[in-house]
Amino acid sequence: MSLTVVGSIAFDSVRTPFGERDRMLGGSAVHFALAASFFTDVGVVGPVGDDFGEAELEVLRGRGVETRDIERVNGGKTFFWRGHYEHDLNVAHTDDTQLNVFGDFEPKLSQASREADVVFLGNIQPELQRGVRAQCEAARLVALDSMNLWIETAKDSLAAAIGEIDCLLLNDAELRMLTGEANLARAARAAMELGPRIVVAKRGEYGAALFTGAGFFAIPGYLLEDVRDPTGAGDSFAGGFLGYLDSLGDPDPPLAELRRAMVYGSTMASFNVEDFGTERVRRLERPEIDARLGEFKALTHFEE
Amino acid sequence: MSLTVVGSIAFDSVRTPFGERDRMLGGSAVHFALAASFFTDVGVVGPVGDDFGEAELEVLRGRGVETRDIERVNGGKTFFWRGHYEHDLNVAHTDDTQLNVFGDFEPKLSQASREADVVFLGNIQPELQRGVRAQCEAARLVALDSMNLWIETAKDSLAAAIGEIDCLLLNDAELRMLTGEANLARAARAAMELGPRIVVAKRGEYGAALFTGAGFFAIPGYLLEDVRDPTGAGDSFAGGFLGYLDSLGDPDPPLAELRRAMVYGSTMASFNVEDFGTERVRRLERPEIDARLGEFKALTHFEE
Repeated sequence: MSLTVVGSIAFDSVRTPFGERDRMLGGSAVHFALAASFFTDVGVVGPVGDDFGEAELEVLRGRGVETRDIERVNGGKTFFWRGHYEHDLNVAHTDDTQLNVFGDFEPKLSQASREADVVFLGNIQPELQRGVRAQCEAARLVALDSMNLWIETAKDSLAAAIGEIDCLLLNDAELRMLTGEANLARAARAAMELGPRIVVAKRGEYGAALFTGAGFFAIPGYLLEDVRDPTGAGDSFAGGFLGYLDSLGDPDPPLAELRRAMVYGSTMASFNVEDFGTERVRRLERPEIDARLGEFKALTHFEE
Repeated sequence: MSLTVVGSIAFDSVRTPFGERDRMLGGSAVHFALAASFFTDVGVVGPVGDDFGEAELEVLRGRGVETRDIERVNGGKTFFWRGHYEHDLNVAHTDDTQLNVFGDFEPKLSQASREADVVFLGNIQPELQRGVRAQCEAARLVALDSMNLWIETAKDSLAAAIGEIDCLLLNDAELRMLTGEANLARAARAAMELGPRIVVAKRGEYGAALFTGAGFFAIPGYLLEDVRDPTGAGDSFAGGFLGYLDSLGDPDPPLAELRRAMVYGSTMASFNVEDFGTERVRRLERPEIDARLGEFKALTHFEE
């Protein structure tokens, strides 16, 4: 089993009511890979600049993440995001975005990355996602994330990309925007008509919902008293979700496994937000994940 | 077992993207009572005007609801609300509010209403809620709903009212506003410190969360493809939740029963929104409720 993620590698400067950090390691591919690394072998494809050093690579390698396809662009600078959160941690306020080497990113996959069983196309330009997808012929499950920018500026390309994948992960607001359907269940059905057999709506603190032809599943967010920084929670969700699915080795996992994958995803997201950036996931131990899965069950289960 | 609800009885004129209705039966006490009537004996305390006729009373009586304490104010007009919903059904836009007889409401409880086992203090002025609560000495469970208006204009009275009850039901935004805590779990804990041993956060389409000293529980909203009118969903939730709890006859229901009550509440809310006003609940049959409880289990359960 192996998993390839293509996406951003970043330095994030983040301020929340609970503290701030300057130029900490971030980016969708990083948050995804660290979460997925608890379940399977994962390799990252993405660009960095001269300012990205061994210390950052070591964070990934320390979790067993394959960094062979992290492309260092000489003379370039790593993608940088500065943002803050007010009282309402559901809303990120962007103060500065410097695409740097990410603006000219053309994914280059090694043979090993192309042969992955599961591929996650993180939020990049849809035509680039299509190019990666075309290279990964052997993948039994290809998932895609996107954002409002591409829905607004490259909708046809995005629809084509979605038509070529198995699993779509979007925020619920983006799913509504993409399909023009205000009702989430209808929006998910409309998205499935574009191609994917699995649609996941990420709902922030409210959890996530899964839609397949075989049925629905929904899970509330884990109720934490201490949330310090929500940056990367959606990517950690995707990493737990797809990492667990890859670990099964099943090309068409049954609904029961997809449900379990949703809970692993939510579990990884819940750890992500407990501290800034990757700090909590870096010191996470596998038994904590299994314990929280049990707590999720205690949180959500009832008897008829 | 018996349940008394004190609250508004209204005529609602509502427009949504799926149709509109003029002067249909509504109000918090009505939605609550119809939902609770599937589980226990419920009596309504609230004021109406000359414009409230036998047809409206018959809707309640047809479900076995006791209408003895519905007070007809001669020469008065019934509370009237006009509102609409856009694409986003989570947001109600108020176009007109005429308090009419509800503006001078002073709850008058018959002996039978005062002897109820469970009492629901619907969203009215907090001092009126306190007056009702003081009359219901025998109640083993008193629950209270409120709104942003009272948090803004009568916070001390509201805090005193909350200090005298067992169970607080609020929207999550209101719970945050009441306590000044942005984090929902912290807000619930702060609310419990005011007095109640049970706090329920209503989260609209995202479901609801329960907080007690014994543990948390959260349930997502039922994923419906057809939502026509969300008016009254929160009161239907409260009716299902407290109606089920009253039916148990247990003064201190264990967490397992509180969880089940949450699912009954969510089930009743999910039926409420399937049609305008009380239309869906009026034609609802008990087996449909039990079937949906099973569907809720299929929606939310997973195995570790």
